[in-house]
Amino acid sequence: MSTNVAIIGAGNFGQALRTLFQKYEPSLAVTMFDQGQGSEHIAQVETLGNFRVVIIAVPIKAFENVVQQIGPHLSPGTLVIDVCSVKKHPADTMLRLLPGHVDIIASHPMFGPQTLGRSDWSLKGMNLVIYPLRVDLAQFENIVGRLRALELHVVEMLPEEHDRLMARSQFYSMLLGIVCDDLGLEPTEIDTPSFTQLMNFMADVKHDRGILRDMYQFAEPCRNEFRLLRSELEKMEKEFAGSQMT
Amino acid sequence: MSTNVAIIGAGNFGQALRTLFQKYEPSLAVTMFDQGQGSEHIAQVETLGNFRVVIIAVPIKAFENVVQQIGPHLSPGTLVIDVCSVKKHPADTMLRLLPGHVDIIASHPMFGPQTLGRSDWSLKGMNLVIYPLRVDLAQFENIVGRLRALELHVVEMLPEEHDRLMARSQFYSMLLGIVCDDLGLEPTEIDTPSFTQLMNFMADVKHDRGILRDMYQFAEPCRNEFRLLRSELEKMEKEFAGSQMT
Repeated sequence: MSTNVAIIGAGNFGQALRTLFQKYEPSLAVTMFDQGQGSEHIAQVETLGNFRVVIIAVPIKAFENVVQQIGPHLSPGTLVIDVCSVKKHPADTMLRLLPGHVDIIASHPMFGPQTLGRSDWSLKGMNLVIYPLRVDLAQFENIVGRLRALELHVVEMLPEEHDRLMARSQFYSMLLGIVCDDLGLEPTEIDTPSFTQLMNFMADVKHDRGILRDMYQFAEPCRNEFRLLRSELEKMEKEFAGSQMT
Repeated sequence: MSTNVAIIGAGNFGQALRTLFQKYEPSLAVTMFDQGQGSEHIAQVETLGNFRVVIIAVPIKAFENVVQQIGPHLSPGTLVIDVCSVKKHPADTMLRLLPGHVDIIASHPMFGPQTLGRSDWSLKGMNLVIYPLRVDLAQFENIVGRLRALELHVVEMLPEEHDRLMARSQFYSMLLGIVCDDLGLEPTEIDTPSFTQLMNFMADVKHDRGILRDMYQFAEPCRNEFRLLRSELEKMEKEFAGSQMT
């Protein structure tokens, strides 16, 4: 079995992954898998046994269904890696549903096609969270080393800890950028430098409403932060209205 | 009467204005006025009659009181300019309370000491809103020309229109940056590029809670937008919770 790579999910991020492999690991053969038209089944899933590495890049809400489909077709020693924006749910799902003879790594690249496209696909200084769920340590260290060679900032972190920290960082910029888009905000002739930055990241995240919803639904810390935000805004408005004109 | 300038209010923005005058108009003599210690009265207000230009850079909530204090001391032909972050309230106040023999311009520089400090006090491309409330047109055009020579983007706009547009731009970045500070958000090891931008402008606006409160209290469009934001977030959470796990 040669080191060829399967990417499951030909959405924005799956396609960005393929571009990254072409740029940084041109010797690897990358094959895309996606569900067949009008179907929830992955086309040609039975050929997955030929792949040494399988990367799952499907929407979080489709994750469990996809893991169930691919599990029976994976060869012993295959390495499965997910790239979901939440980590506890996919980590639990993979450990529960994948056969014992495959290795498993959880990961979350903290960047997307929008940012990469602007920097000519440079990964320099970008953050990537990774965790060895069930994998030979030497193989894991080898992968981390190759990622670091791309100048990625690789952070080893437990899935639960990732979700807690992501809910206090990425989740907020996505939520605030998307609610500003919902409100129809747009650049004006009188922008301040701060508002210009808000408009910049709104443009980056506004197409990711599905990811935001999945974060909310599949990571409890995100639900808690959404509640905290709403409660803090209510408190602030009461304070402003209460001291009005005094 | 020589062209000397009085700045009323020695807060962050008043001091930034003095620095700008020193850098860009070093031939003008600038004098700072502020309230006396433990007093709401402006010290030496009776000397204001000696000044050709008076810039009011006090907090919005103090504005009416300050205009009442300075009005009786101003000489005929003096030009009064405000730099408040809202425009209808100070414009109405100045037209109502200042003597008919002074000229009046309303302005809102859409930048602050934080941004200027980072760019070596360059004004290039910064936005400045201005409106000739009661002033000789030739004098107004002369001032606009001098501002444009500093590479400022000068926008002539009615006070009401400014407040409507500001509530849909600057007000949001201030509100969202300050609520993130209230929530205790801070840069993490796993930031996305979007969250980094959010943290950047949070750092710029988090000390301006008083200005945000004044915007809310003295500009109706800001109160409306605060309500719209809260309602949009409620709608979004209902949508996310309603479609949960489906």
